[in-house]
Amino acid sequence: MSELDSRHVVVRGIPRVGAPVLAALAEAGVSTVHEAQGRTGYVGPHIRPLQDGARVAGNAITVLCHPGDNIMVHAAVEVCQPGDMLVVTNTGPSSHGMFGELLATSLTARGVIGLVIDAGVRDVAELREMGFPVWSQYVSSQGTVKKTPGSVNVPVSIGDVVIAPGDVVCADDDGVVVVPHQSAAAVLEQATARLEREATKRQRLAAGELTLEMDGLRDKLIEMGVQFIDSSEVG
Amino acid sequence: MSELDSRHVVVRGIPRVGAPVLAALAEAGVSTVHEAQGRTGYVGPHIRPLQDGARVAGNAITVLCHPGDNIMVHAAVEVCQPGDMLVVTNTGPSSHGMFGELLATSLTARGVIGLVIDAGVRDVAELREMGFPVWSQYVSSQGTVKKTPGSVNVPVSIGDVVIAPGDVVCADDDGVVVVPHQSAAAVLEQATARLEREATKRQRLAAGELTLEMDGLRDKLIEMGVQFIDSSEVG
Amino acid sequence: MSELDSRHVVVRGIPRVGAPVLAALAEAGVSTVHEAQGRTGYVGPHIRPLQDGARVAGNAITVLCHPGDNIMVHAAVEVCQPGDMLVVTNTGPSSHGMFGELLATSLTARGVIGLVIDAGVRDVAELREMGFPVWSQYVSSQGTVKKTPGSVNVPVSIGDVVIAPGDVVCADDDGVVVVPHQSAAAVLEQATARLEREATKRQRLAAGELTLEMDGLRDKLIEMGVQFIDSSEVG
Amino acid sequence: MSELDSRHVVVRGIPRVGAPVLAALAEAGVSTVHEAQGRTGYVGPHIRPLQDGARVAGNAITVLCHPGDNIMVHAAVEVCQPGDMLVVTNTGPSSHGMFGELLATSLTARGVIGLVIDAGVRDVAELREMGFPVWSQYVSSQGTVKKTPGSVNVPVSIGDVVIAPGDVVCADDDGVVVVPHQSAAAVLEQATARLEREATKRQRLAAGELTLEMDGLRDKLIEMGVQFIDSSEVG
Amino acid sequence: MSELDSRHVVVRGIPRVGAPVLAALAEAGVSTVHEAQGRTGYVGPHIRPLQDGARVAGNAITVLCHPGDNIMVHAAVEVCQPGDMLVVTNTGPSSHGMFGELLATSLTARGVIGLVIDAGVRDVAELREMGFPVWSQYVSSQGTVKKTPGSVNVPVSIGDVVIAPGDVVCADDDGVVVVPHQSAAAVLEQATARLEREATKRQRLAAGELTLEMDGLRDKLIEMGVQFIDSSEVG
Amino acid sequence: MSELDSRHVVVRGIPRVGAPVLAALAEAGVSTVHEAQGRTGYVGPHIRPLQDGARVAGNAITVLCHPGDNIMVHAAVEVCQPGDMLVVTNTGPSSHGMFGELLATSLTARGVIGLVIDAGVRDVAELREMGFPVWSQYVSSQGTVKKTPGSVNVPVSIGDVVIAPGDVVCADDDGVVVVPHQSAAAVLEQATARLEREATKRQRLAAGELTLEMDGLRDKLIEMGVQFIDSSEVG
Repeated sequence: MSELDSRHVVVRGIPRVGAPVLAALAEAGVSTVHEAQGRTGYVGPHIRPLQDGARVAGNAITVLCHPGDNIMVHAAVEVCQPGDMLVVTNTGPSSHGMFGELLATSLTARGVIGLVIDAGVRDVAELREMGFPVWSQYVSSQGTVKKTPGSVNVPVSIGDVVIAPGDVVCADDDGVVVVPHQSAAAVLEQATARLEREATKRQRLAAGELTLEMDGLRDKLIEMGVQFIDSSEVG
Repeated sequence: MSELDSRHVVVRGIPRVGAPVLAALAEAGVSTVHEAQGRTGYVGPHIRPLQDGARVAGNAITVLCHPGDNIMVHAAVEVCQPGDMLVVTNTGPSSHGMFGELLATSLTARGVIGLVIDAGVRDVAELREMGFPVWSQYVSSQGTVKKTPGSVNVPVSIGDVVIAPGDVVCADDDGVVVVPHQSAAAVLEQATARLEREATKRQRLAAGELTLEMDGLRDKLIEMGVQFIDSSEVG
Repeated sequence: MSELDSRHVVVRGIPRVGAPVLAALAEAGVSTVHEAQGRTGYVGPHIRPLQDGARVAGNAITVLCHPGDNIMVHAAVEVCQPGDMLVVTNTGPSSHGMFGELLATSLTARGVIGLVIDAGVRDVAELREMGFPVWSQYVSSQGTVKKTPGSVNVPVSIGDVVIAPGDVVCADDDGVVVVPHQSAAAVLEQATARLEREATKRQRLAAGELTLEMDGLRDKLIEMGVQFIDSSEVG
Repeated sequence: MSELDSRHVVVRGIPRVGAPVLAALAEAGVSTVHEAQGRTGYVGPHIRPLQDGARVAGNAITVLCHPGDNIMVHAAVEVCQPGDMLVVTNTGPSSHGMFGELLATSLTARGVIGLVIDAGVRDVAELREMGFPVWSQYVSSQGTVKKTPGSVNVPVSIGDVVIAPGDVVCADDDGVVVVPHQSAAAVLEQATARLEREATKRQRLAAGELTLEMDGLRDKLIEMGVQFIDSSEVG
Repeated sequence: MSELDSRHVVVRGIPRVGAPVLAALAEAGVSTVHEAQGRTGYVGPHIRPLQDGARVAGNAITVLCHPGDNIMVHAAVEVCQPGDMLVVTNTGPSSHGMFGELLATSLTARGVIGLVIDAGVRDVAELREMGFPVWSQYVSSQGTVKKTPGSVNVPVSIGDVVIAPGDVVCADDDGVVVVPHQSAAAVLEQATARLEREATKRQRLAAGELTLEMDGLRDKLIEMGVQFIDSSEVG
Repeated sequence: MSELDSRHVVVRGIPRVGAPVLAALAEAGVSTVHEAQGRTGYVGPHIRPLQDGARVAGNAITVLCHPGDNIMVHAAVEVCQPGDMLVVTNTGPSSHGMFGELLATSLTARGVIGLVIDAGVRDVAELREMGFPVWSQYVSSQGTVKKTPGSVNVPVSIGDVVIAPGDVVCADDDGVVVVPHQSAAAVLEQATARLEREATKRQRLAAGELTLEMDGLRDKLIEMGVQFIDSSEVG
């Protein structure tokens, strides 16, 4: 298979992370997972939830489309399994409404738990009513054609993040973070430890303690040259 | 009347589309209507609903303002009739809050069913409470003056769409689509046919059928050179 | 104290406006207050509420951070008092998620009533659940470091508005407006008068009267050369 | 011809404005022409020149494309005549590079004097070398397909401006302004008068006179309540 | 003078920094000055030069306008002196072309050396030809009115930077940085020291030395846990 | 080496494409190369050249930084060889000026031929004077720290494009396109064939032939239902 010929493929049989790890990562939440893997993997503030309160994590089925063409989204449906997240990207910028209620119906029938897309979606009212969670860059009615090939389950990217098929995609009200499937267990371990530390900290903060003291930040600030003064000293 | 003098007018007596067609277009929804007229008329993803779940269609009363000046919105009120939608545009980009609760009160008294505006609105909490639906580019407190003339019921544009007075403006959670008043009946016919096809399709997709087979997309993909392979073949 | 050394300070003891004035300004709402002080003080449409329906006004505790670093937000907590609003800015553009649930817990313990930030926040679901209102430019999971000093309670700016420590920050669904603490009482007086005028006007508009007549706008339009014509005259 | 069928047309034989008027409007420049027609017709700051110093005016050949598809640009070439400007728009937002050096070669052979496009162009180096002036929203390499029909010489819009076939499109370093073909002569008259007034004014300003006095602005400012004070009075 | 009445003023007699310090800060350049004052004062990447290669520093004459209204720019001319920079801001977002060749002619007659504006300018070709340097957010033909008062020489802000009358505004191809007039001499001292350090460093880098060694960054990286490996170890 | 530990690495010894292929790809230009590999690999219109007329192609040295921190750019210098292009990305959005004249001096000493960066650069005047070509998202003076580790020569992404170390980065006035190093030779072959076809076509178009006929587009348009009519038929 030559390099150029290899461009348009639909790949079956990707690696997947087990349901318990996925459930625990979803529960931990996007921002905790992002911190747990060293502040990496966040796809950026331009990918926003279409609904409030959804919190999921699934194995990425990646789709690479031509802008304005959603034929590869249709091609991706049959390789989806329960617990998967569909991740739709384009070979260039696009605000087209590439996804709507019919595709969500089809994905729901396959057990897919949500969609991340760096373009637009439509049928917003229906998608919310169905409870199919979506994170997208745009809402747009602008329809698409089905005329240019692309690929399913090749490495893609959104923002500054590379997403391989089978990587864990966590999404909630804070946005979307990607965890390489190889590191899912290790990241979960860090996330769990972080959640425990935060639980303790939350109680102390609610009781009025200051991070200035708890985390030694006052000493750090003084060392950085920050002066604590009264407004009368400002002149 | 010379061309230059004709610029500042308030035109009464625009064409209107009847209530049953409007009701049916509203029910069909923005994305269906957009498809039904050949994927045209969508004003773009920058015009967003201020509320969730509103779904309306009305005859456009068009307003052309100077940026930062809303005097022509006031001028437009008396030419409005029940079932109209107000469409406010500017002769240049503007994020001003050109519209608020008092104007909505006045329009509601005239039977106007909603607002589309390519600038900003304010009094958001009050507008939501009143149930007066708005689709706008911005929310902004920045107030306006009443010092520069414009026109009411001349052709205007938002994004890439030209809007004539009396055109049908459909708006819902997907945004705003414009249907020329002459084609409203024909577009509705296409939309209705589309809705029927989709109802059937939805059932089959919910039962697990694939568009790959139903729509002959697999053959199309193969013809385009897309290869269906196993991950083991990726190497 | 030389000018250069003075840059990194935490200032205690800022001027504050009394609770009754704050409560009345909050009640008046952002757009009314903005009008009442001569259409100034609005920070712009890029600062959006994270929640629907919150309406607050408080004394500004201002924070100036290095982009991507939130150590000064921690430094600001101890100078906060009940009724304060935290206003977080950066020395350059930033979309980082500089603020989350733990900081909100700490601020809530101090009686702080809300946050305005020209960067990003995270833990959105938790913040909404806590009922801690936030107005921000972004939602972002992207974490921050604690390595570069800044200042607390120095004059800062958002958009085109300068904010001094102790200025009144009003925030609701329309966004954020800033009132200099010296003019808070005078602005409130204007706002109250305006609200009264609007109450009368609202009744008349609801009864079908037109601003064209009530405000003498028809004469003004005619004087500006606007012509009221029938569509048959358009040709 | 039914309304729906009428959508995809290539219209020959549009109205045109004569070369002397075009030349004089080009010479007057975009901002003067914009003022001369009452501050209307400017398509907005998002349409930028690809080169410095070009200054042209021509009759608009309008093109309406599907986003990501440039087949209608090809269809437009044969209806172009010497002195025409090509105006390319889309039925929805697009950043595709829809136009490049080969199309410019073809248009140059027909005597077309420039391009205005609300999407992207490519082959920038070649276009500059050819001296074919372009005003576009984007530069983008992203290629297009030729699969979806549109129209040539129907009314289109860019930003807030409606452009009819044969309207005068003026473009220079300030951007693009559109003059309805019926008002071209009247606008030119106003523009010429304005240029004469400005020539006189320029001399007086260069000699140190102030618009405060020349235009009576000082009195106007005082009437508006502006106070002229010394910094010592600021306190 | 009550607080509310004080809003619209033109203030004469601002503090100014002497010509030698201005010249040296201009020569140092925006990025060096920004670093020299602790990475503060940069107004942000949205304010861009209209020309290549200009490098100036002057005392800020600050102007605060109503969006779409440039009357206060006219009011500012007479308080300008040789060596001043005009800094034009608005009480809300605006892309209007508020400034053009006639105002530049008037300012040039007063010895003003440049303009910084957070809105738009027009007459770009003429401004470049005159050699009057401009840093703006937009280029726009959209004209303005002269109907709403504002102020001259009050504190204003652009992006995250507060600008007081008489502050030093440095501008070059990197953008615009503001130095409080009180710290101009101290910042210049730091800038000069920085330039000297950089001159030495430049020579060593040109000779092939690495910052990894020169600045001890390799040790720092290793301490941070960065591993230096061969591609064969990546697997 | 565990997954989590592997995150911060500097990888030496990447694959490289030979100089003749690089030279030929540079000469072909970004848009031709983009077409030659099936309209993929273009990083998007947000990455713009800092200069006019540069046209280069080199092997990618990829850098992944923390937003606002350029320590990894320094770490990348020693793994660069003559003919390399530096590709700097961040783990989240950033407009910081992460690169300037001193780093360009250091890279020039190593034979690096250009920079692509999804954040900002500064010292623009100096970079242009040195003739060191840059493609960036922003120009910004905002400085960075050197406190958080990242990686060199790991896969990164810009826009929708994944970039592996050693991939060919082509950049010119149209922007930046990435060619996987394995397909460089095959893409060059396609690009060369395309250039030959275009040379012939250019001559025919310059002679007045139409793509409508040459490419059979008229038949295609008619088949799509496009009607060629006279303006008199529009009514």
